[in-house]
Amino acid sequence: MKKLLPPLAAPLLMAQAPPPQVPAALANTSADQIIDASPAAHWLAIDPDDIMVMDTAVGRMVVQLAPQFAPQHVAAIKALVKAGRFDDGRIVRVQDNYVVQWAAKPLDGKAVVSQPPDVREQRVRPERLPAEYERSARGLAFTPSPYKDTYAEAGWISGWQAARDAKAGTAWLAHCYGTVGVGRDMPPDTGDGAELYTVIGHGPRHLDRNIANVGRVLAGIEPHAALPRGTEALGFYKDESSRVKITQVRLASQIPGFPRWQMMDTASPSFAAVVQARANRTGFFVRPAGAADLCTLKVPVREAR
Amino acid sequence: MKKLLPPLAAPLLMAQAPPPQVPAALANTSADQIIDASPAAHWLAIDPDDIMVMDTAVGRMVVQLAPQFAPQHVAAIKALVKAGRFDDGRIVRVQDNYVVQWAAKPLDGKAVVSQPPDVREQRVRPERLPAEYERSARGLAFTPSPYKDTYAEAGWISGWQAARDAKAGTAWLAHCYGTVGVGRDMPPDTGDGAELYTVIGHGPRHLDRNIANVGRVLAGIEPHAALPRGTEALGFYKDESSRVKITQVRLASQIPGFPRWQMMDTASPSFAAVVQARANRTGFFVRPAGAADLCTLKVPVREAR
Repeated sequence: MKKLLPPLAAPLLMAQAPPPQVPAALANTSADQIIDASPAAHWLAIDPDDIMVMDTAVGRMVVQLAPQFAPQHVAAIKALVKAGRFDDGRIVRVQDNYVVQWAAKPLDGKAVVSQPPDVREQRVRPERLPAEYERSARGLAFTPSPYKDTYAEAGWISGWQAARDAKAGTAWLAHCYGTVGVGRDMPPDTGDGAELYTVIGHGPRHLDRNIANVGRVLAGIEPHAALPRGTEALGFYKDESSRVKITQVRLASQIPGFPRWQMMDTASPSFAAVVQARANRTGFFVRPAGAADLCTLKVPVREAR
Repeated sequence: MKKLLPPLAAPLLMAQAPPPQVPAALANTSADQIIDASPAAHWLAIDPDDIMVMDTAVGRMVVQLAPQFAPQHVAAIKALVKAGRFDDGRIVRVQDNYVVQWAAKPLDGKAVVSQPPDVREQRVRPERLPAEYERSARGLAFTPSPYKDTYAEAGWISGWQAARDAKAGTAWLAHCYGTVGVGRDMPPDTGDGAELYTVIGHGPRHLDRNIANVGRVLAGIEPHAALPRGTEALGFYKDESSRVKITQVRLASQIPGFPRWQMMDTASPSFAAVVQARANRTGFFVRPAGAADLCTLKVPVREAR
């Protein structure tokens, strides 16, 4: 029996569309079916200049950068990419249920040791970036998740899993599986974009607002998440022989013929239906949860058709 | 400056101790420091008959079983272990951000295909177990988490990350990183304990109450979480050559000299302090979260000294 499902809550700030409703035809269908059936108008293009393509010894990882949330960090990362600084870089750390971390080739040829978090030593890097851990929510359309969140008010901003503090007027990206952030030393302004990590475990939301979250993996996390865990403290690899080589990193805009990527518009009825479906799974599930936490409510992404 | 932290909420059902307080001396120390400093009285022995020791081609994984929550499933698993049915079994599935799944050697020699969840085919197995997905909360001491949970009322029962429905009077184990569950086909009573999985991704809490959660990994998940992801649908390995061999599975009680394991008493002040510390991280953290979700609030376990 088809039934009308309640609409998700509407975007609160600068909402430009009426509240998305879950179309009746999409009730009781799976998230995959909803994604497959979604009209082209429910998808947004991802700027190829915001896509970083990393080729390593184990595969290609495609990362979307979030200049809206950490503009100076993203600019620094793009500059490093364009300068070829990540070419011949290394994956230096794989910590189980936590992160894969990689580093640009150091200018001075010395090994990279920046350790976020749980850092043991304090060092100063030449290029300091401000602590872009959160930003003003002004001008951002926020689509709140209909479900309770342990940490904050959770939802989506500009196509990203995010959270906000309505009272303080701030917003930030959430740390979930596949989130990409910038390693730093103990002082907050010591990340320079030359050392990045992606999350390969339970979403470490305690990192929210404590480190610059700059993006997410669109594709290719699997062989990297399957790398051997490092044997040193915090999962660092012991020596050069165990580090994994990065052969080349480019922006998608630098690669002729690179596929176009899209993300689902979080203000669209299709996305509302996806959220609804993920919280109320059918088929195998005898007791749908009726809720879903933010990290399980990824924004669908795809290569453009 | 030391400050007194508020106590955690007290266990509600059959509480046998006064509400645990965070000792002032433990405020502003890290979870690791609190664990190191905890007195022996704050630790409980884990029955070696509830520990399953699995040796595979990539390492040893030590699993604690939870007979309190799925007595018939756990009894079936122990019987399979004692009959040597897991010896020469295989890891048959590794799905990124989801599960590693393994199977006992089939009695009929046929390949194992049970697929939880998102099952494609329905099959009937000879040994049917009841759907032990939740149980009566009667007689269980529940220590509630002080923090909001997306899915239910979260906390700890008998040393396990768990949740309950106070109105319905039911309780169940939560699905988090390292949780061990029993694969089943589409009908709820088709799990027989011969096919198990452990979670290697963001806690899939939507599985709570939908599948028999029978335990958790105490040690050795790392090399298994780092196995190559399967290339078939749902991360199944394509053929026998890619499956990972299980050499032997025994209960700890069957292995002379096997280390004794302990878990922290969740009703102890040390555990209250660990929870507090994980929600209010210091050092690297410029803005402690002030909360922590259930899956990040693991009960500390250790080999006995």
